[in-house]
Amino acid sequence: MSEPLPSFLGFPDWAPERLLDVVDLAADLKGGRARGHLGGRVVVLYFMNPSLRTRASLEAGVARLGGSTVTLDAGAGGVWGLEHEDGVPMLGGPAEHVREAARVLSRYGDAIGVRAFARFKRWEEDRSEPLLRAFARHATVPVFSLEGSCRHPLQGLADALTLRERLGDPRGKKLVLTWAPHPKPLPMAVPNSVVEAGALLGMRVTVARPPEFGLDPEIMAAARALARARGGDVEETDDRAAALAGAEVVYAKSWGALGCYGDVEQEAIARARAGARWTVRPADLEPAGGPSDQPGAGALFMHCLPVRRNVVVEDAVLDGPRSVVVQQAENRMWTAQALLLRLLGGGVARPAARPDDGPLYA
Amino acid sequence: MSEPLPSFLGFPDWAPERLLDVVDLAADLKGGRARGHLGGRVVVLYFMNPSLRTRASLEAGVARLGGSTVTLDAGAGGVWGLEHEDGVPMLGGPAEHVREAARVLSRYGDAIGVRAFARFKRWEEDRSEPLLRAFARHATVPVFSLEGSCRHPLQGLADALTLRERLGDPRGKKLVLTWAPHPKPLPMAVPNSVVEAGALLGMRVTVARPPEFGLDPEIMAAARALARARGGDVEETDDRAAALAGAEVVYAKSWGALGCYGDVEQEAIARARAGARWTVRPADLEPAGGPSDQPGAGALFMHCLPVRRNVVVEDAVLDGPRSVVVQQAENRMWTAQALLLRLLGGGVARPAARPDDGPLYA
Amino acid sequence: MSEPLPSFLGFPDWAPERLLDVVDLAADLKGGRARGHLGGRVVVLYFMNPSLRTRASLEAGVARLGGSTVTLDAGAGGVWGLEHEDGVPMLGGPAEHVREAARVLSRYGDAIGVRAFARFKRWEEDRSEPLLRAFARHATVPVFSLEGSCRHPLQGLADALTLRERLGDPRGKKLVLTWAPHPKPLPMAVPNSVVEAGALLGMRVTVARPPEFGLDPEIMAAARALARARGGDVEETDDRAAALAGAEVVYAKSWGALGCYGDVEQEAIARARAGARWTVRPADLEPAGGPSDQPGAGALFMHCLPVRRNVVVEDAVLDGPRSVVVQQAENRMWTAQALLLRLLGGGVARPAARPDDGPLYA
Repeated sequence: MSEPLPSFLGFPDWAPERLLDVVDLAADLKGGRARGHLGGRVVVLYFMNPSLRTRASLEAGVARLGGSTVTLDAGAGGVWGLEHEDGVPMLGGPAEHVREAARVLSRYGDAIGVRAFARFKRWEEDRSEPLLRAFARHATVPVFSLEGSCRHPLQGLADALTLRERLGDPRGKKLVLTWAPHPKPLPMAVPNSVVEAGALLGMRVTVARPPEFGLDPEIMAAARALARARGGDVEETDDRAAALAGAEVVYAKSWGALGCYGDVEQEAIARARAGARWTVRPADLEPAGGPSDQPGAGALFMHCLPVRRNVVVEDAVLDGPRSVVVQQAENRMWTAQALLLRLLGGGVARPAARPDDGPLYA
Repeated sequence: MSEPLPSFLGFPDWAPERLLDVVDLAADLKGGRARGHLGGRVVVLYFMNPSLRTRASLEAGVARLGGSTVTLDAGAGGVWGLEHEDGVPMLGGPAEHVREAARVLSRYGDAIGVRAFARFKRWEEDRSEPLLRAFARHATVPVFSLEGSCRHPLQGLADALTLRERLGDPRGKKLVLTWAPHPKPLPMAVPNSVVEAGALLGMRVTVARPPEFGLDPEIMAAARALARARGGDVEETDDRAAALAGAEVVYAKSWGALGCYGDVEQEAIARARAGARWTVRPADLEPAGGPSDQPGAGALFMHCLPVRRNVVVEDAVLDGPRSVVVQQAENRMWTAQALLLRLLGGGVARPAARPDDGPLYA
Repeated sequence: MSEPLPSFLGFPDWAPERLLDVVDLAADLKGGRARGHLGGRVVVLYFMNPSLRTRASLEAGVARLGGSTVTLDAGAGGVWGLEHEDGVPMLGGPAEHVREAARVLSRYGDAIGVRAFARFKRWEEDRSEPLLRAFARHATVPVFSLEGSCRHPLQGLADALTLRERLGDPRGKKLVLTWAPHPKPLPMAVPNSVVEAGALLGMRVTVARPPEFGLDPEIMAAARALARARGGDVEETDDRAAALAGAEVVYAKSWGALGCYGDVEQEAIARARAGARWTVRPADLEPAGGPSDQPGAGALFMHCLPVRRNVVVEDAVLDGPRSVVVQQAENRMWTAQALLLRLLGGGVARPAARPDDGPLYA
């Protein structure tokens, strides 16, 4: 049993080595080279927004480690929303303040996962993860993000594992994160975490998006610094064709426009103007010289799911041999397990280790 | 540990021997003659529609076998609905396709149960169980029905166990499935599965219903063939009194009218015309010669629950000694356990077996 | 393993000794002087209304005892409401009667917890806990309240433990339950149970409230008789200042007005007239002689949570050193565990006991 680590609301909260250690442990759990156990610990999952993968991967992953989950759906009638601003008279809206909720749930659970999507009013607010930060500030057990208003670090960890499984050493390889059409404005949590995951692995990350859809400059600058320190880079462009050239991975995702953040009408116009040419098609994955005879040639296709077929990406890509979206989703469970084992100081056994190889539990 | 079996969306998916083996195992689990264990396996339960018995019996049953459930409520804000048509641009409605959901949940769970009620648009569509079939086609673990748009096989298994417990050898005995009034049009999943359960047991099944409420001819024909091969029969009639004469079991259930399927107005007229004379009353259970002095004489009363009292059936029947509705509901848990043990190749111990009686685990 | 005890819908259901035994056991579980185990038992939690603390404390508490919970949210789309009146034709509203639900859930679970808030139509109805009583009458396993329309005994048990932890011997000490403002009329379940908990501990309980907000006279009379028999008393007053003088504990809670029960408009007027002077402020906790130099001097502050900050009570009180609201909430888990161990006859081990100290399991 190691020391419990502090809360985990995004990649910048932890040193790169700690993040890579989680990815390593996830790979070992998946490959049967390590067995984890949570020894009856209880993980509280507090969802302010709907979830399929995050919820199912956590519930299944914790159960498979011998722990239990307590899942609370704030949106589903079962629980209520939470106030997180300090000093306000709580006359309307939420009946409970995060100050109480975080402290109380800390008495029931050994860790608390929280999902709170962007509110799409002001980017400065969403950027600061107000609800998750408030939870972490008031909780007395580790808090981790089940997707916040600015980052989705569980997705980033799963994507890092997938990239390593598929690319071997990803350093210096080209990952293109391409904006995609969508009927609704979506948060920037996933794209931010994808860029950070690519930077962590030392990849050459190119964000291709329409002019209005640039990502947050500060987050990009920090990711660029990290990437460069690890042999990669981060750049942004609105030249989609140039970005796709030479890509080894094409990661599609829709997100909202920073320039008109919270302005539903202007945002819809920007999305409509960008239009269907950003839908990912089979040709977008083809190697530089055009279609190849070699099966599996071309870029890998990634998406965090759920994905709107034939809007974000065509069926032929999703159902083709270069799509790794299900592998990404599976890796959500292994990386969540690894994160919780580290966050809670759970036990990790190495079944293959011989007694004289050293301690069985690390 | 035996080989995992394929998906189970309705009785016709499995050979009669396999179905009866599940009923046998359920009886042994209930009687303490067998103990099952799922060894930490995870069962995903995906509900597109509300549930009390199915959900509670599965969650409790799996926990009692040492497994875990991950329950996802698509309707409750916690999760979203699923698209199941292929090739459509997913611009509105569901945010996820069953192709992804089924493959992803297969990575988290060892089996997936799915509930998807009839959509009441076109019977040809509901008859084919489009969502469940799509789930089973794309999943890589066994899929089983938590009630589909055409069948409710978990109910059928529980009813088969109940009929055997109450009747001993049910072969040749008369089971009357009688249509009943209801304020809303209901699916045909339960009546179809009740007829198939009676046929499996070789009973003489009579479906009594108003003229507009005949069940699907193909399903009835297949059930009739099965029943005849096993010493019974299946027939339909609108002569309620004749049907009830000599019944050993009266199973009440409301369902919609095939002739005006999806036409809410015409359907309501048909239901109103049939009216209250189809409500089950104490006299309907009386033996042929009128009320008997013998306690418990007359037909058994069955219903799948939930039941609208004094609409479908009068209090005096439900609260009387011939009602077995709670036993049916209890058997939902034992048959679900038996099904999952077979579906997942779980372990079954026979505590009473002596070592020389053969292998302890079958 | 001891004998299972009957249902627990409120303090009056059990003898004072049994209630205190639960509080004692909870203290021992919390202090590590006892370890409980539920041996795989299944507890069904049926919520007709939302819950955070009750749900999370039960789910976590049962998991930590090696049991499982099956949680059903009647309001959340996952399940339906229940009819509890007898003899009615169930043409509209709930699709299931509590007669069936209680008997069926008794076959799946080893105990059933039910939450059913006041309907706010007629006090005579809410006072009788109609839904919980119906559940208990028809169930064949122990039923316990997750908060009813008249009492919240799990809160009362947790508060009793908190009062004992904080006050040592609470006999004769002054507990002031003060009405508080709130944007909506709230049930009387918590105030009734707080008074009963104070009475059980032999405290001098004073209920301070505006004239229109007196509690039920019969419940108060019974609590007064119990309190007097145990060295305390129960009184009511609308003189807030006099009530607070000499208080060792100030328990704030809002509740509705009996005089205009179910009359939303009149009730809102009564609440508005009482107004903000009932908000608890730091000065309300000060010792008789004014602010003290001694840290922690003055009354303790209690509330059941969730609490509307700066409406019911000011931030400075909640965030100050005299607030024990989180301790109260934590004690919900320990007392729920103790209750279930007694209700289900679960095992209790005393790790510190030497073999010759007597039986290990009590």
